[in-house]
Amino acid sequence: MRKRVYLDWNATTPLRPEARSAMLAAFDVSGNPSSVHSEGRAARKLIEDARAAVAAAVGGDVRNVVFTSGGTEANALALAPGLRRGNGQAVRRLIVSAIEHPSVLAGGRFPQNAIEIAPVLPSGVVDLATLETVLADQPPALVSVMLANNETGAIQPIPEIAALVHEVGGLLHVDAVQALEKMPININELGADILTVSGHKVGGPKGTGALIVADGLYGLQAQVRGGGQEQGRRAGTENVTGIAGFGAAVKAAMASREANAARAKALQARLERGLRDHPGAVIFSGNVPRLPNTTLVSAPGMKAETAVIGFDLEGIAVSSGSACSSGKVQPSHVLRAMNADPALITGAIRLSMGWDTTEADIDRCLEAWRKLSGVLRNDTSIGLEQF
Amino acid sequence: MRKRVYLDWNATTPLRPEARSAMLAAFDVSGNPSSVHSEGRAARKLIEDARAAVAAAVGGDVRNVVFTSGGTEANALALAPGLRRGNGQAVRRLIVSAIEHPSVLAGGRFPQNAIEIAPVLPSGVVDLATLETVLADQPPALVSVMLANNETGAIQPIPEIAALVHEVGGLLHVDAVQALEKMPININELGADILTVSGHKVGGPKGTGALIVADGLYGLQAQVRGGGQEQGRRAGTENVTGIAGFGAAVKAAMASREANAARAKALQARLERGLRDHPGAVIFSGNVPRLPNTTLVSAPGMKAETAVIGFDLEGIAVSSGSACSSGKVQPSHVLRAMNADPALITGAIRLSMGWDTTEADIDRCLEAWRKLSGVLRNDTSIGLEQF
Repeated sequence: MRKRVYLDWNATTPLRPEARSAMLAAFDVSGNPSSVHSEGRAARKLIEDARAAVAAAVGGDVRNVVFTSGGTEANALALAPGLRRGNGQAVRRLIVSAIEHPSVLAGGRFPQNAIEIAPVLPSGVVDLATLETVLADQPPALVSVMLANNETGAIQPIPEIAALVHEVGGLLHVDAVQALEKMPININELGADILTVSGHKVGGPKGTGALIVADGLYGLQAQVRGGGQEQGRRAGTENVTGIAGFGAAVKAAMASREANAARAKALQARLERGLRDHPGAVIFSGNVPRLPNTTLVSAPGMKAETAVIGFDLEGIAVSSGSACSSGKVQPSHVLRAMNADPALITGAIRLSMGWDTTEADIDRCLEAWRKLSGVLRNDTSIGLEQF
Repeated sequence: MRKRVYLDWNATTPLRPEARSAMLAAFDVSGNPSSVHSEGRAARKLIEDARAAVAAAVGGDVRNVVFTSGGTEANALALAPGLRRGNGQAVRRLIVSAIEHPSVLAGGRFPQNAIEIAPVLPSGVVDLATLETVLADQPPALVSVMLANNETGAIQPIPEIAALVHEVGGLLHVDAVQALEKMPININELGADILTVSGHKVGGPKGTGALIVADGLYGLQAQVRGGGQEQGRRAGTENVTGIAGFGAAVKAAMASREANAARAKALQARLERGLRDHPGAVIFSGNVPRLPNTTLVSAPGMKAETAVIGFDLEGIAVSSGSACSSGKVQPSHVLRAMNADPALITGAIRLSMGWDTTEADIDRCLEAWRKLSGVLRNDTSIGLEQF
């Protein structure tokens, strides 16, 4: 049998060896981190070491890292009225970009009538002019824009957005789940007030994440209450094994970040040259800064769901856009927000790479792509049903 | 060096070998459970197998199990206005017993002025007569009473409470976190409408839990939103490794439940005979049905914090009441609710056992206890400072 090729790293990344080792070691740490005996203190140390690793990865302060059960919960925790800087006014409305993750679009604890959507340009980048207009209203807003989009990989101009937001007394939440490891992140240089990361996107275990708060931000209210954990910002016995794996994964990811990004960039170029061989193939956000590992492609006549199954049968795991909503097959809200051609939206396939993706993997993927596009060339009406 | 003796199983249980194996296997399952390719389907299978194990352990339906990041989150999810049976009235107020876990006392999503506390008798058991009076008011209430208390081990008369609650159109939430594995549980026989369990109390990993809903209960609203996972009842990429470990632990716990409970009962008798050697020693809830693994003891002049450190130095992990609130040293709210003597409350130490506790462990513990009680006998004013 040929080796499986995994090109769905944006949905979730395989467990890093370093995370595996850390989790194995944590299996033997039997204590509750809140217990004062030595077993408890050993568990506490694993958590605090991981906290330092996460803080370092985003240039945050170790006291400002709140562990959660993932990016979705971190976003739910972040998006709440009441956040403020120092003695500043508390935010009372929410502005989210149209291409945010569903957990941001859900709006956290803001009432539905206090949530506005900021549009994006056809390039997949937030429309700054319109954002500025929406921001001009009162009361002060919390704005949530992701650092890089999970479907297209398009990098958003966060420092520019932060300047606009802060100029009118607003606050900025940045969902950096997809960007972590794939580009440098510094919460202060970005100008973010609060930032979300996730463990399983950097080779840590699924079910871990963190919210990092900038210095001087106040008013974060726990959503899961009834326990003093995480300085009262998130109750519940900590996922010690998961957090230890998250910390080890982040540390390993940061150590190899630059080298992996350079490799991914070269592989991405090879991949996209090949994809463009199919006449009419479109790479979304193709002309704006993008993550080096993410390519969202479509072609006229393509049907994404069938294509994913076709690729799977060829031994290649790819995704039809976001995999975050179990069992839901819906046209991508990201591509609709970009005003993409509906015929292309239904065919969009995401190819995302990671640290062990090879040239051979890319070539295998392109081989399957040519097979598929051959079928399309012969008879577009059958789509991928025969793939 | 002498073997460490771990007698703090109620704070958290060491990882079961079966959970460890399942988690190791899950390390290699790289997919996102929401992805349709084979890696995704393999991850989905791990979750659904665990769901079946959890459902079976509490006599629930597999469709009615919602995985969470732990008992605390499950309680926060359960306690919300709007729950109803069939076409019945939705609950609009909350009654919690005075000895509930802090995550239940926090009241979930009920406004503070809609939460009432039901007292307990000095035995540590809910006062049914007073509960009946509180229940008589309108509107219909959600009542939350734990199956067994985490500090005293006292088993609450849940079927009787369920009858009282249902008679007046209320609903019953049962926090069974501490009871799972230590006594038989069947959601329907208990008469619970919604039930919480936790992974790390049965030898699964910390950071896993589940809410189980009885058939015919409606109106459960997700707290973490923005994704279709868990049938829309709990968004976020699933903690696949943790859930796999939880499922394996529950399965193993159920297979050995009766044998372990019988062993624990014998060990508990041995332990308590020895503890009572110290004049004035009190075992809380000593005369009501209790879990076979839990003993909360105190003696005049004892200081729990110092005693825990003293035991730790002797190589024995014990707890001063609940370990759930990091860094907080407060008199037990459970013992205060039982109207216990304040001089005894400050000395209360919890000794909790598990499947690998041996007679030798109990004897080691009693040896330390005698050393400690000797100090107390000589000069009660120094308490345990010299222990």
